[in-house]
Amino acid sequence: MHTQLSQQTREILTQVSTATLTTQLFKRGLRNVCLRGVKRLTRGGPNMVGPAFTVRNLPAREDLDQLSVFENPDHPQRKSIELMPEGFVMVVECRGETDAASGGHILMTRLELRGASGFVSDGGVRDSASIAQQDMPVFCAGPAAPLNLARHHAVDFDIPVACGGVAVYPGDVMAGDADGVVVIPRYLADEVAADAARQEQFEVFVLELVRSGRPLAGTYPPNADTLAEYETWKAGQEAVGA
Amino acid sequence: MHTQLSQQTREILTQVSTATLTTQLFKRGLRNVCLRGVKRLTRGGPNMVGPAFTVRNLPAREDLDQLSVFENPDHPQRKSIELMPEGFVMVVECRGETDAASGGHILMTRLELRGASGFVSDGGVRDSASIAQQDMPVFCAGPAAPLNLARHHAVDFDIPVACGGVAVYPGDVMAGDADGVVVIPRYLADEVAADAARQEQFEVFVLELVRSGRPLAGTYPPNADTLAEYETWKAGQEAVGA
Amino acid sequence: MHTQLSQQTREILTQVSTATLTTQLFKRGLRNVCLRGVKRLTRGGPNMVGPAFTVRNLPAREDLDQLSVFENPDHPQRKSIELMPEGFVMVVECRGETDAASGGHILMTRLELRGASGFVSDGGVRDSASIAQQDMPVFCAGPAAPLNLARHHAVDFDIPVACGGVAVYPGDVMAGDADGVVVIPRYLADEVAADAARQEQFEVFVLELVRSGRPLAGTYPPNADTLAEYETWKAGQEAVGA
Amino acid sequence: MHTQLSQQTREILTQVSTATLTTQLFKRGLRNVCLRGVKRLTRGGPNMVGPAFTVRNLPAREDLDQLSVFENPDHPQRKSIELMPEGFVMVVECRGETDAASGGHILMTRLELRGASGFVSDGGVRDSASIAQQDMPVFCAGPAAPLNLARHHAVDFDIPVACGGVAVYPGDVMAGDADGVVVIPRYLADEVAADAARQEQFEVFVLELVRSGRPLAGTYPPNADTLAEYETWKAGQEAVGA
Amino acid sequence: MHTQLSQQTREILTQVSTATLTTQLFKRGLRNVCLRGVKRLTRGGPNMVGPAFTVRNLPAREDLDQLSVFENPDHPQRKSIELMPEGFVMVVECRGETDAASGGHILMTRLELRGASGFVSDGGVRDSASIAQQDMPVFCAGPAAPLNLARHHAVDFDIPVACGGVAVYPGDVMAGDADGVVVIPRYLADEVAADAARQEQFEVFVLELVRSGRPLAGTYPPNADTLAEYETWKAGQEAVGA
Amino acid sequence: MHTQLSQQTREILTQVSTATLTTQLFKRGLRNVCLRGVKRLTRGGPNMVGPAFTVRNLPAREDLDQLSVFENPDHPQRKSIELMPEGFVMVVECRGETDAASGGHILMTRLELRGASGFVSDGGVRDSASIAQQDMPVFCAGPAAPLNLARHHAVDFDIPVACGGVAVYPGDVMAGDADGVVVIPRYLADEVAADAARQEQFEVFVLELVRSGRPLAGTYPPNADTLAEYETWKAGQEAVGA
Repeated sequence: MHTQLSQQTREILTQVSTATLTTQLFKRGLRNVCLRGVKRLTRGGPNMVGPAFTVRNLPAREDLDQLSVFENPDHPQRKSIELMPEGFVMVVECRGETDAASGGHILMTRLELRGASGFVSDGGVRDSASIAQQDMPVFCAGPAAPLNLARHHAVDFDIPVACGGVAVYPGDVMAGDADGVVVIPRYLADEVAADAARQEQFEVFVLELVRSGRPLAGTYPPNADTLAEYETWKAGQEAVGA
Repeated sequence: MHTQLSQQTREILTQVSTATLTTQLFKRGLRNVCLRGVKRLTRGGPNMVGPAFTVRNLPAREDLDQLSVFENPDHPQRKSIELMPEGFVMVVECRGETDAASGGHILMTRLELRGASGFVSDGGVRDSASIAQQDMPVFCAGPAAPLNLARHHAVDFDIPVACGGVAVYPGDVMAGDADGVVVIPRYLADEVAADAARQEQFEVFVLELVRSGRPLAGTYPPNADTLAEYETWKAGQEAVGA
Repeated sequence: MHTQLSQQTREILTQVSTATLTTQLFKRGLRNVCLRGVKRLTRGGPNMVGPAFTVRNLPAREDLDQLSVFENPDHPQRKSIELMPEGFVMVVECRGETDAASGGHILMTRLELRGASGFVSDGGVRDSASIAQQDMPVFCAGPAAPLNLARHHAVDFDIPVACGGVAVYPGDVMAGDADGVVVIPRYLADEVAADAARQEQFEVFVLELVRSGRPLAGTYPPNADTLAEYETWKAGQEAVGA
Repeated sequence: MHTQLSQQTREILTQVSTATLTTQLFKRGLRNVCLRGVKRLTRGGPNMVGPAFTVRNLPAREDLDQLSVFENPDHPQRKSIELMPEGFVMVVECRGETDAASGGHILMTRLELRGASGFVSDGGVRDSASIAQQDMPVFCAGPAAPLNLARHHAVDFDIPVACGGVAVYPGDVMAGDADGVVVIPRYLADEVAADAARQEQFEVFVLELVRSGRPLAGTYPPNADTLAEYETWKAGQEAVGA
Repeated sequence: MHTQLSQQTREILTQVSTATLTTQLFKRGLRNVCLRGVKRLTRGGPNMVGPAFTVRNLPAREDLDQLSVFENPDHPQRKSIELMPEGFVMVVECRGETDAASGGHILMTRLELRGASGFVSDGGVRDSASIAQQDMPVFCAGPAAPLNLARHHAVDFDIPVACGGVAVYPGDVMAGDADGVVVIPRYLADEVAADAARQEQFEVFVLELVRSGRPLAGTYPPNADTLAEYETWKAGQEAVGA
Repeated sequence: MHTQLSQQTREILTQVSTATLTTQLFKRGLRNVCLRGVKRLTRGGPNMVGPAFTVRNLPAREDLDQLSVFENPDHPQRKSIELMPEGFVMVVECRGETDAASGGHILMTRLELRGASGFVSDGGVRDSASIAQQDMPVFCAGPAAPLNLARHHAVDFDIPVACGGVAVYPGDVMAGDADGVVVIPRYLADEVAADAARQEQFEVFVLELVRSGRPLAGTYPPNADTLAEYETWKAGQEAVGA
């Protein structure tokens, strides 16, 4: 279950946009792949890419969810951070509750130190100003001061979860950029990455045409003439090693 | 985990209202015990009472959630129905999605035949007109024609779930009436039932006073005089075997 | 502030629909007069009519809102019930929170006994099955088992409130039927009632025409011919004492 | 565009449930076919069936949407009622705004008189108590006293609309029962009806089996034995002319 | 319908704030003029101003809304971009669905090249990081990776639309700044612009007074003394050619 | 009621995060202390700290809420600004309505000049680009061009209010940073501040450990060894005068 991404697929996915990925998944009949209500908190840098390592939260219950629970070294919120394989993205189910944190600066620092490729939650995070400065990409519903126990009971990890209204199975590939976070079913990751790279190369060409004044009809999508032109352009690109 | 309720507690809980139960749980520091957005579909009859047997749904994914999944005899939606112990209440996590069904008439008929004490979902049900005629109490978000696969992927059962924004652990006691559905943590069921019965006996007395014209002050809550009066009334009630 | 409605206006308002009242208020430039999310719980009988007597709730705070607060005979929820003048309608601000009760059967029984013309809340009520049997009209967001303290802190009464997204000033006239609850500014009550009665008389006539097969054009709204016909019809109605 | 439904398809659709219809549409890749937030207001009787005749509302603007607009005999709300072909279902886009009416008793009476097969709106209706007594099926978001002008500007009719989050094209077939309203693309109506009838016949058989104590596995969905049993049962049914 | 704005009105509207414009429209009885849920994506620069050129989207239907639709050169999303007159603002109805894009970087680039004054949608946009760098002002519900077909079916353009809960008629004047987007009915544009300029000149003066320590009473709104002072100030301003 | 904060408590609260404050309040049984839907508009600088001075808004009514109301020097919106004691934070109840302003640049300028420690509203603000440049911290639901009268009727001030779903009593201590705004009941302010300072000192130490590679177990929360280590560290810190 904790198979790593191939280096090639990881590299491609770091380059292509989530917009392109949703198009590729749409072509394969998948319409519900982008987490709703989940935005990038950290700024700049390359895209987030990595297989999902999941955490599931239930609603809190006052008698169970007191600060003393963290004294248990097996508490799922803490244990999951220590067990997540390097290069993975932690994905936390918060049932879309935006008014409590799914983590704060200390936990995010530990996660980054352990080599995480990112953190995704459909709940909030606290210490958001500090976290926004981290290198590790963090995507969430927004800042929220209250501690997780005010709303959440971490109950399990490394199992299928719902996040932002989308199913995330352990090992699915998470990709994130300024447009949000997309889930790619694991078995599709390599082919989707390859097709996405091709699509983006073509769109670089189309953007050039559009900037030169071409109308959309015949250009985007392309007619036969534009496609022929593209083949020439592509050959030229490859000749110069682009 | 599948311990039955004591007969005495079940009998009391069938008599007392969910309103009373929330008051008893509030006294014990539990404020989030009543499922939000979950209403009774079936009409009349005694309250629903039984330990929870849970089912968890993820968001559907188009490639996984096709009609053929039901050919698998281990599909969690179907298997859970066959495995639930008699006298339990099935509690289904639908993430509050109201626009698809968590079950229809055939499944509810099978459930009733298997001796279920009720069905609770924070999603919809289909064939709602037929289900509304069943004896087994059904609580849900309302009618919804679309089949579960349009929204849901049944992923597991007999594990903790979120339903209507409240945590439900297997074996917790579910109680339902016209006001909705309340979850009683298993370890509190007996004492909460006993105290609820006492509270309701007192409220029968208070209602008599109020109907006779007594003002609220001193009556509800009672002052020392009213409490003394209640002791007399209670003795009278017991004398006549009420 | 606690002036009663004139008997004539009360009688008219008991006959006319809230639909007609919104049209009359719309003619006077008032578009936000109907409480959102507030439905009739009680069934049958004439419309609810009466001047507003208001109660305001804040969000609850755990240290302040314990069951012991009701031992204070001046607690606003209880005191307001004892002080409301006969014939008034209690209007309770619950900030649209639907998951806790603004009252239960004992309080509603006392309110009815004190001669209230109705109860309106944009929160829930508990013991809803019992309350639904009362003669006093009750309008609310729906059933909700949890006691008010789980969400609310009654802080004041007989002051302007927001209910269902609409401003209600003490003494404003509340009118309710199967379509919901409408607020009529006190100073407009007599003239709105008179115009509403005229409008409904005309609509009885129009409905007769429509049932006889007349098309909408020229009938609803009426052209000069239809208006002339109406005058004749009205004279006939008055002749037979209708 | 105003082609009538075949008599056979209309008859079948009057018998089968919207639950069955969503399953048939799901098999054909259509997952978003059931109007969200739209409930039956009228009670009892057969299902609603008919091709869609649409009306589109924009948000109201205070300077344009005064009562005088109805003096225009070409006002789209009124004109559409007079022009809708017999046997059609009026479908009104209200952008899911539930706090104003898309029509009242007089308009619904005229619509019924003109032979409408039903009325569907994702907004409210006023005079809901009277409309609930009509024979013509009415589906809407619920009762709402305020007149349409408080929220809506009827701008066009007989064009594609959005209703309850679903696209409705003129002539699409609307089917409604206690579970809600389903849209069948016109070109699929005959085949979906035929398959739905077959599905429901099979489910009658399955329900008999389940009532006799059969477990779900092998029965629902059926294995080869159950299918063979069904063929025998069906032959028997046909022999007795059921 | 495609009349351009007068140069003078365009210049004024580029200077005044949307806050001022809502005040001017409020004075004329228009309370619902500012698009809800629509924020500026692009940063800096002068305000967006231009007449509306509209596009309408329906909910997508899986059989109709496949990627091949764009091969049709008359597809409304693409055709509308090519036909919009220079200086106009494209306004797209997305029914407030925030989880899919109404356009991406290539389309926005083409739109800017065609001389558009801006783009407004109550849905999302994709490639948001690139679009945020464009000079052409873009206002939307936020970033959203999924392509439009995941949610939308572009059905028509240059007709009245609903955007952000507000009616937009073709040719209405759109004005946008950091506070959002306001719609000015075309026939009011010149007079509202003129009055807005006067209001803002006065508010510059008031701000000076407030910064010098004046209390609000008598200053904002002004009493007779303040108004006299303003006349003097204004004369001074004009003397120095401000 | 208008007692100032002690200088020591104000200084501590300016240093500690709202995240820490919610933890301290959670320890004391207070779970609902952080305003929902309220974000910082102004950037940078120290935290907002000050006792609450409140303003309450009702829904607007068209006949009452015209621009002329501001000619009344006792209008609560204006008068409250002039009467608020220095060092306080204005807290405005807008019932969570985000589509109108609770104030604009002129009012915020006056408030800052009067020595306010901040402004908090669960509604919008207009002139948001100018306000974002002010030194005085402003927290709100976001930018909103429409004037307050489009939605609100300022009815009273210096009374308990609801803001962002949380009760705020006059004199309660408001604290705000990038994570949002927290309310500290007045009677707890000193002890919560003291404990928060201790908690943050410990977390500085923990962050150092985590950055040095320590796992969470035994560190956060600390076991006996870590606690001992902390005592040593703290002594060191104090020795160097940190």
